[in-house]
Amino acid sequence: MNRREFARHLSLMLGTWAAGRRHAPTQGPASLRVNGTRLNEQLTRLGNIGRNPVTGGINRLAFSDADREARSYVTQLMRAARLDVSVDAVANLIGRRGGSDPTLPALMVGSHIDSVPEGGNCDGPVGSLAAIEVAHTLAERGVTTRHPLEVVIFSNEENGKTGSRAMSGEVEAQELDIVTASGKSIRDGIAFLGGEPGNLRRARRERGSVAAFFELHVEQGGILEREQVPIGVVEGIVGIKRWDVTVEGFANHAGTTPMDARRDALLAAARFVDTVHRTTRDIAGRQVATVGRIRAEPGAPNVIPGRAVLSLEIRDLDMTKIDQVFERLRGEADAIGAATGTTFAFQPFYTSHAALTDEPLRRGIESAASVLDLRTMRLPSGAGHDAQSVARFAPIGMIFVPSVGGISHSPQEFTRPDDVVNGTNVLLTSLLESDRPTDRG
Amino acid sequence: MNRREFARHLSLMLGTWAAGRRHAPTQGPASLRVNGTRLNEQLTRLGNIGRNPVTGGINRLAFSDADREARSYVTQLMRAARLDVSVDAVANLIGRRGGSDPTLPALMVGSHIDSVPEGGNCDGPVGSLAAIEVAHTLAERGVTTRHPLEVVIFSNEENGKTGSRAMSGEVEAQELDIVTASGKSIRDGIAFLGGEPGNLRRARRERGSVAAFFELHVEQGGILEREQVPIGVVEGIVGIKRWDVTVEGFANHAGTTPMDARRDALLAAARFVDTVHRTTRDIAGRQVATVGRIRAEPGAPNVIPGRAVLSLEIRDLDMTKIDQVFERLRGEADAIGAATGTTFAFQPFYTSHAALTDEPLRRGIESAASVLDLRTMRLPSGAGHDAQSVARFAPIGMIFVPSVGGISHSPQEFTRPDDVVNGTNVLLTSLLESDRPTDRG
Repeated sequence: MNRREFARHLSLMLGTWAAGRRHAPTQGPASLRVNGTRLNEQLTRLGNIGRNPVTGGINRLAFSDADREARSYVTQLMRAARLDVSVDAVANLIGRRGGSDPTLPALMVGSHIDSVPEGGNCDGPVGSLAAIEVAHTLAERGVTTRHPLEVVIFSNEENGKTGSRAMSGEVEAQELDIVTASGKSIRDGIAFLGGEPGNLRRARRERGSVAAFFELHVEQGGILEREQVPIGVVEGIVGIKRWDVTVEGFANHAGTTPMDARRDALLAAARFVDTVHRTTRDIAGRQVATVGRIRAEPGAPNVIPGRAVLSLEIRDLDMTKIDQVFERLRGEADAIGAATGTTFAFQPFYTSHAALTDEPLRRGIESAASVLDLRTMRLPSGAGHDAQSVARFAPIGMIFVPSVGGISHSPQEFTRPDDVVNGTNVLLTSLLESDRPTDRG
Repeated sequence: MNRREFARHLSLMLGTWAAGRRHAPTQGPASLRVNGTRLNEQLTRLGNIGRNPVTGGINRLAFSDADREARSYVTQLMRAARLDVSVDAVANLIGRRGGSDPTLPALMVGSHIDSVPEGGNCDGPVGSLAAIEVAHTLAERGVTTRHPLEVVIFSNEENGKTGSRAMSGEVEAQELDIVTASGKSIRDGIAFLGGEPGNLRRARRERGSVAAFFELHVEQGGILEREQVPIGVVEGIVGIKRWDVTVEGFANHAGTTPMDARRDALLAAARFVDTVHRTTRDIAGRQVATVGRIRAEPGAPNVIPGRAVLSLEIRDLDMTKIDQVFERLRGEADAIGAATGTTFAFQPFYTSHAALTDEPLRRGIESAASVLDLRTMRLPSGAGHDAQSVARFAPIGMIFVPSVGGISHSPQEFTRPDDVVNGTNVLLTSLLESDRPTDRG
């Protein structure tokens, strides 16, 4: 920080302090706290929109009536938080408030409120309503940030992160024809929510236009709960590679072929599934590998399978590590093939590149948690998030709060109210930390 | 044998010898041999009916046009063999010739000529044309058996042994509505082949009405080939039990759930598939167990399966042994469940009781093979056969000849012409052995 910057910072800090003092004379910015009761009440109210009364599952599919109803509710909350609300071309719902320095790029914070079918009310809503609560708290306390503030509720996260990917310019024209779980195409869905599907380029954000992006999200895994740590500092969103694995054996009569004369493709596939699990656990690191889909052919109880087809997915923050795990699994598949008279073939069909979070923002989150006396741990995000798209044009920081039982995409998805409040206070404090002038600008 | 029986036997034997001498003065019954060239030529001709010119696979589905065409060809062969041809109520094609003793029940011999989709030309046709060739040889050599002779081509073996099961009274009314691979219901198919589906009871045979039944069949497995034994003496047709196995775990996010925090139903199912194979091999005996079908739910590459559903089939000649193997597998499933946080449930859905062959007929087949200087071994039939139904009203004897590579129900199904001839000579000699008067009548 040079002298000029320091002077500007000091004057702004004083202004902020003065603003805060009007409502909370004993508090400085570092001691600002969100209204947790209000936030959790809003979460409960949002959870009544799209809820299946029988299962308790949330069905707020992107582009559905429930999605639109929820966005209308969230718009009210934004206005109450004194944000100027608009809808961009891809139907992202944006609440904006100017900063004290008009030359600075925006600080952006947000998440999504659409759900998977029969999902929960935490994946998306926690970070979305937390972002609005942060703005609301700042407004109530009369705190004006140096940077403009943008709260974004991204459209259609669950069917392909359309809203955030349009901001990073990644949405391709033919993608708009995809029919989502709502029954509408993405094109029609964007229009249904007030966007302009023919003008998606208007939603695009250029690199440098956003100073930092923060997303608070529920972990959707069980690490924080197991470690009894309230705040996760996300190192990045893991990369993903997927393969179709085809095992070729020889189909034969299940009654007439002795056990020692079989070339059973499903037996080989089963040993591979076990190896995927054991090997991936044995290798040091936090990589995960999953076989989620399997089929035996011809698929009759009385025929030894001649072919088995399964999916293999490997995730890690480091794409090189994914390749290393894959090569090891491929070697073990060859050994299984040799032992069972079968052959394995691997066909890649999907790659998603890892997106790292910004190291200064990670440290800012840790510092914020420390101020709030909350323990933190660093961990990767195994799931994709809107932040992953934003990472293409801005530094990102992600905060995780614990998911009870590690359960997500389920009616049983739940994060304790206290954890929601902790995460939101960390979000607020981190945001203010990023708003401080530093050598980074 | 008492004196009266001996005298009758002697007179009949002399009559038979005299008849045989008319055409083949130097041969006695034990040295009669079939015309192997003719038989293999007929097999080749039959194999042109219903053959897929591209794959070479036989598509002579029961009740199809190809089935009817093949039956027409076989009818000609029966007539050439001087058999009286008729079609019974279930559309079994029957060639009959009287015996020298009108008080005796018939000796029956036969198999089927229908095929699975894309099957081979050995499963069924070898035993069917061999039976006709035996009758043809006897007729040519002027040999009249004591017992009446019946050559039966059973209808619809491949979709449920309808022809032979109607003879044993096992076909149930509602079964006639089943639509087979031909596109016709069993009812319409029977009518299409000239039967009377409304009068199936007329096809029924009472216990005692058949002195003995012989079926020559290709092994459909690889044991005889591996052991280099040309003649298999079938101990019986194995019993079958089948279960649906449901593994319950917990579906979760494949990215966010660490490897050591998963309750992966497919991992547990995979270990079970491996255990089914290893355990069934480890237990002494010739039992076989197969998992032919598997499904993971929800079945997406990015979701840890919460449920896996698979089939389990166990076969053995001894139903008690099947239960023992099952109990052992169930115990191992419980251990896998405990180790993986999953549970296993077994739902039985199919039982077919084992049918033993008749010990005197087994010895007769061994004696016949010995006369022909052919080695034999006893083995179970892992596959079902028409003989299994006939066993409910008559003693059965079954002869196996080697399948090249153990392959069946495939265009690659093949039995060497020499093995077909060897089997047919054993069939002929065994039949004559059974025609001899003994204490059994």
